[in-house]
Amino acid sequence: MANVSPRPALVVVDVQKGLDDPKLGRRSNPDTEKNIAELLAGWRALGLPVFHIRHFSREPGSPLNPEEGGDVRFKDEAAPLSGEAVIEKRVNSAFIGTNLEERLRRTGIEKIYICGLTTNHCVETTTRMAGNLGFETFLVSDACATFDRAGPDGTPHKAEDIHAMTLANVHGEFAAVVETRDALAAAERPAA
Amino acid sequence: MANVSPRPALVVVDVQKGLDDPKLGRRSNPDTEKNIAELLAGWRALGLPVFHIRHFSREPGSPLNPEEGGDVRFKDEAAPLSGEAVIEKRVNSAFIGTNLEERLRRTGIEKIYICGLTTNHCVETTTRMAGNLGFETFLVSDACATFDRAGPDGTPHKAEDIHAMTLANVHGEFAAVVETRDALAAAERPAA
Repeated sequence: MANVSPRPALVVVDVQKGLDDPKLGRRSNPDTEKNIAELLAGWRALGLPVFHIRHFSREPGSPLNPEEGGDVRFKDEAAPLSGEAVIEKRVNSAFIGTNLEERLRRTGIEKIYICGLTTNHCVETTTRMAGNLGFETFLVSDACATFDRAGPDGTPHKAEDIHAMTLANVHGEFAAVVETRDALAAAERPAA
Repeated sequence: MANVSPRPALVVVDVQKGLDDPKLGRRSNPDTEKNIAELLAGWRALGLPVFHIRHFSREPGSPLNPEEGGDVRFKDEAAPLSGEAVIEKRVNSAFIGTNLEERLRRTGIEKIYICGLTTNHCVETTTRMAGNLGFETFLVSDACATFDRAGPDGTPHKAEDIHAMTLANVHGEFAAVVETRDALAAAERPAA
């Protein structure tokens, strides 16, 4: 292909202040924001492409619904720098109702690393679609987190178990699961 | 809208003989095929639209890769009747690389019931996308099944736990989780 880049993109999903709302309950992985900040610092130092995904929910009760006062600002650790791509979305997948796929294709990007919030919803849906759309996709497991959640029958699930099941479901099927240090090491040798 | 149908579609995902391959290991919910047959009988009796999704994998080792001798035929319980829609796909999501969305939109279908194999991969990915694309989506939980699977760190997960986590992840976010009897009852009163 004429325009293929070995440069991996970093896709940071929904790292927004509204997701600190206490009504969301107990969250997993308190190191998420620190690891995302490390990923961003590494990508920026290497001049690699970064895409910030920002959610504007239309769902009643969502802490990211701006019509209900949801705080859609980026968290400090994940704030975009001037000139970095920011893509707004309305549903879980960063590929639906956006030009993310077109922008990745246009610049020949084939390899993407995904991190952010929450593991099992916006991150996982974006990861599943990225893999199915043919991107070489990596999910950075320690740079994601989620919340406790009950099943439709009321069965409680711990955030850590939900997170682990996302990793099991996507690994080898839609993406490779890696950690922050793996992603940073890979970014330094993008043609490998 | 000009062309909106209250008629719900049934989307049957990947109910193919190759998924009986013993190498897939232990499966959940032996009643899946019986329940899918009941859904099909109900939809057909009411003259409601049915979409059969058929997977042709390109993945090495997939029991649905026809290039490796995978048996891609439909299981007897889910065989399409003459005139029913059959849509071939190459990846997990029935919406990627197919005209499923276009066909649903063209006929004004807004409500879809999804069942089939496997809960956490093709069914779940199709369900997530259906919800994010704006369809009113229902996942028929007792007409789906999956297999035991290990996480990236080797942690074993039982098929029943994987299935339950899919239900927890999609319910109220991408779809409503229902059972076969609920789906059949709803199909009889489509304008409700």
